Amino acid sequence: MNKNIIPAEYKEEIKKLKEEVYEANLKLVEYKLVIHTWGNVSGITKDRKFMVIKPSGVAYDLLSADDMVVTDLENNIYESKYNPSVDAPTHTLLYKANPDMKGIVHTHSVNAVAFAQSGQDIPCYGTTHADNFYGPVPCARALTPEEIDGEYEHNTGLVILETFKNRNIDFKATPATLVKEHGPFVWSFKSPMDAVNMALTLETVAEMAIKTSMVSNFKSSTAQPALVKRHYLRKHGKNATYGQKAK
Amino acid sequence: MNKNIIPAEYKEEIKKLKEEVYEANLKLVEYKLVIHTWGNVSGITKDRKFMVIKPSGVAYDLLSADDMVVTDLENNIYESKYNPSVDAPTHTLLYKANPDMKGIVHTHSVNAVAFAQSGQDIPCYGTTHADNFYGPVPCARALTPEEIDGEYEHNTGLVILETFKNRNIDFKATPATLVKEHGPFVWSFKSPMDAVNMALTLETVAEMAIKTSMVSNFKSSTAQPALVKRHYLRKHGKNATYGQKAK
Amino acid sequence: MNKNIIPAEYKEEIKKLKEEVYEANLKLVEYKLVIHTWGNVSGITKDRKFMVIKPSGVAYDLLSADDMVVTDLENNIYESKYNPSVDAPTHTLLYKANPDMKGIVHTHSVNAVAFAQSGQDIPCYGTTHADNFYGPVPCARALTPEEIDGEYEHNTGLVILETFKNRNIDFKATPATLVKEHGPFVWSFKSPMDAVNMALTLETVAEMAIKTSMVSNFKSSTAQPALVKRHYLRKHGKNATYGQKAK
Amino acid sequence: MNKNIIPAEYKEEIKKLKEEVYEANLKLVEYKLVIHTWGNVSGITKDRKFMVIKPSGVAYDLLSADDMVVTDLENNIYESKYNPSVDAPTHTLLYKANPDMKGIVHTHSVNAVAFAQSGQDIPCYGTTHADNFYGPVPCARALTPEEIDGEYEHNTGLVILETFKNRNIDFKATPATLVKEHGPFVWSFKSPMDAVNMALTLETVAEMAIKTSMVSNFKSSTAQPALVKRHYLRKHGKNATYGQKAK
Repeated sequence: MNKNIIPAEYKEEIKKLKEEVYEANLKLVEYKLVIHTWGNVSGITKDRKFMVIKPSGVAYDLLSADDMVVTDLENNIYESKYNPSVDAPTHTLLYKANPDMKGIVHTHSVNAVAFAQSGQDIPCYGTTHADNFYGPVPCARALTPEEIDGEYEHNTGLVILETFKNRNIDFKATPATLVKEHGPFVWSFKSPMDAVNMALTLETVAEMAIKTSMVSNFKSSTAQPALVKRHYLRKHGKNATYGQKAK
Repeated sequence: MNKNIIPAEYKEEIKKLKEEVYEANLKLVEYKLVIHTWGNVSGITKDRKFMVIKPSGVAYDLLSADDMVVTDLENNIYESKYNPSVDAPTHTLLYKANPDMKGIVHTHSVNAVAFAQSGQDIPCYGTTHADNFYGPVPCARALTPEEIDGEYEHNTGLVILETFKNRNIDFKATPATLVKEHGPFVWSFKSPMDAVNMALTLETVAEMAIKTSMVSNFKSSTAQPALVKRHYLRKHGKNATYGQKAK
Repeated sequence: MNKNIIPAEYKEEIKKLKEEVYEANLKLVEYKLVIHTWGNVSGITKDRKFMVIKPSGVAYDLLSADDMVVTDLENNIYESKYNPSVDAPTHTLLYKANPDMKGIVHTHSVNAVAFAQSGQDIPCYGTTHADNFYGPVPCARALTPEEIDGEYEHNTGLVILETFKNRNIDFKATPATLVKEHGPFVWSFKSPMDAVNMALTLETVAEMAIKTSMVSNFKSSTAQPALVKRHYLRKHGKNATYGQKAK
Repeated sequence: MNKNIIPAEYKEEIKKLKEEVYEANLKLVEYKLVIHTWGNVSGITKDRKFMVIKPSGVAYDLLSADDMVVTDLENNIYESKYNPSVDAPTHTLLYKANPDMKGIVHTHSVNAVAFAQSGQDIPCYGTTHADNFYGPVPCARALTPEEIDGEYEHNTGLVILETFKNRNIDFKATPATLVKEHGPFVWSFKSPMDAVNMALTLETVAEMAIKTSMVSNFKSSTAQPALVKRHYLRKHGKNATYGQKAK
């Protein structure tokens, strides 16, 4: 057992967060976004002092909500029976760079991985994509051998941040990325479960994109900008008409 | 709450229609034609004064039949807790143009969307298609930026009507269309549930068409006209031999 | 009600056969080889006087075993509430040409239909195929417009018989065929349920064949003859080593 | 009944092994890696004197754990009601060549078979693959007609051994192979069930590889060596960081 103690005032919030993160991890399996113990979901406390994340490589039927691992954003482990997911340093870096981000998911869902493995963005071919991601879902550059041999998971997070900065992409408008030769990271500014729902959306959009290529014998062009804008803004922002508002 | 009052004589019919439309919306999920709250089904009263449609963006487990939204064909909302689907103006336009139409479905089913995203008709490659759609399922032209920035959902309906008129397609013989870079709309002249069943048929036919292209390395030709005619008329019209007739 | 009476001595055999055929039809849906009321399975009495087949176009949840339709091999209907499947004349012709055949299935399973729609045989790419079908699964020639406009379902059966005769294919060694631009017919010399199991095998083999083309960018060659022969004879014939024999 | 008697001291171990092998065979069906009675799983006693394997061609609903077949590594059958899987001689040869191997699985899973049927290795396109297989999953050379006509299943094992020897592949680092024009064999140095889990992993990795080819129009390159090494060693060997260690 690690020696770091969670302050008493966090106990209730962390208990609730562990339940949320646990349920969100189970949903990954139910949605068929992962097999075995692949994938991981995390959440964060309101003051962003603690992250809760799935343990590394433990079978789901051996886990309870209480087994979710608590770390701080420097990756120190607090009062946890298990080691956190090996990808935890990627999560913490994304949380630090995005002070409003509430949940992060990493999956190996097949269609999104296919784009990641081919090193390509998922192009915005239509409104299903535009309703959820404003522009292509970017595939980050490959890590260098030095980045891989060093703090690999931390460097994975750095390359994601670099991609969004260099390409001027908004983490809120495009809540997902592909790590090259690896797979997707997806996030939410609402909750861990919302991030999992977005991971299912990403997988569906990726499957549609592959089939769009098939239908057109690899000759499809991306959706027209006016349509992409209309659909994105129909669901997001202050003039959104989709969903229910206070009347 | 909106102020429009449903006249007392409609209460019973609308209660029943809400149940039909609710069950039909649930079927969309069961058939895996949509994920999350995507897609929508509507129905219409016998005198075509009121449409009942799914609310916009509310999770299915929060909905009951009574939460289905009532509008008239001018898109005024009547005594409803929720906003209707954003696509409601496309539905009302199709109902107005087709005085016998009884149910309309919009989905984001993957294989049909692939054709819509590539801007192609679903070709009639065989009898599974011809049993249900007499000729290709047409993909409408792209909306212009002006049409998109204007009354978008209404204009979507107009482009569908234009496509069927210009190409001389019968809404009854071909009960589905693709909206370019978007997805399918499907309808029925029997009931909302029948429209959902036809949406599953469309998705299956679209999947078959993609795989037909794969098998032939994109060299398939469409089914011969005599066969298409025979199969369509075997199931439809006064000389149909498929199914059960009064004996 | 039709006036033809089933002789009393057949009542018990036909009751049992109706149950077998009913269960086999339900299995088509469970195996996902059809949606809705698509597809049909038939069986035959021992003396080959009566065929039992699914009614045409009745929803499964409205059917019981007793609703299966009884005909003779000249397509006369006996004491049945419903019309038989429209494809019944194809079934009766195959039974007449094959005095040992015990069950026939017609499906619209997606991968097999893809080959039928592209007018291609399913090539024997490996042992999964060779274990079950000795050589390619043949795609019959297209019917002529005259054959389509005439006794269409009867002519469909004739074209299958012509294909097996002209290409010198054994109905026992290759228990399936594709009707061009339509879909598969599959049979068994054991039972209606065994024919349904073979229809699932055919669909799986067809899916493998499409993916084999994908993997090789349409450059795969068929399995070597010695391997095909070994696998077929490992499961079939007097020197078979697969399965359980009396010891 | 064969006359070979299992020595009394093995009864308990073999009873337990039969249960493990039975459960692992059922998992093949649950994971959708096989249909019907296809595929087989085996396990081995601690002293490697007895193998337990699925019977050949018996429906799962007729089998209990006790029906699993016991053989020695020379393929003699001991006190078993049924014949073993026809592939048993391939299993025994792999066990003899690998003194630590604990379980072997043969499936006809669709995506892995597609690579086997096209005679291609499954390339390592990304980290999902590298986490589990260190380098490509090799496709063995075709058997010669003489090898096929001779001791076919034994020769299948010999060709697998030849492939791993000639290409200098470690059975522990790459726990799967493809038999050309046939399908995958997968193994584990832990247990029969672990081998089945790896067979599911292989199928998923194969599906990802096919879709990666689709996304890139057959132009994908394999993952960079530094990344493959990092991921493999993150999960395997003495410096592994994945999963839970004694602390």
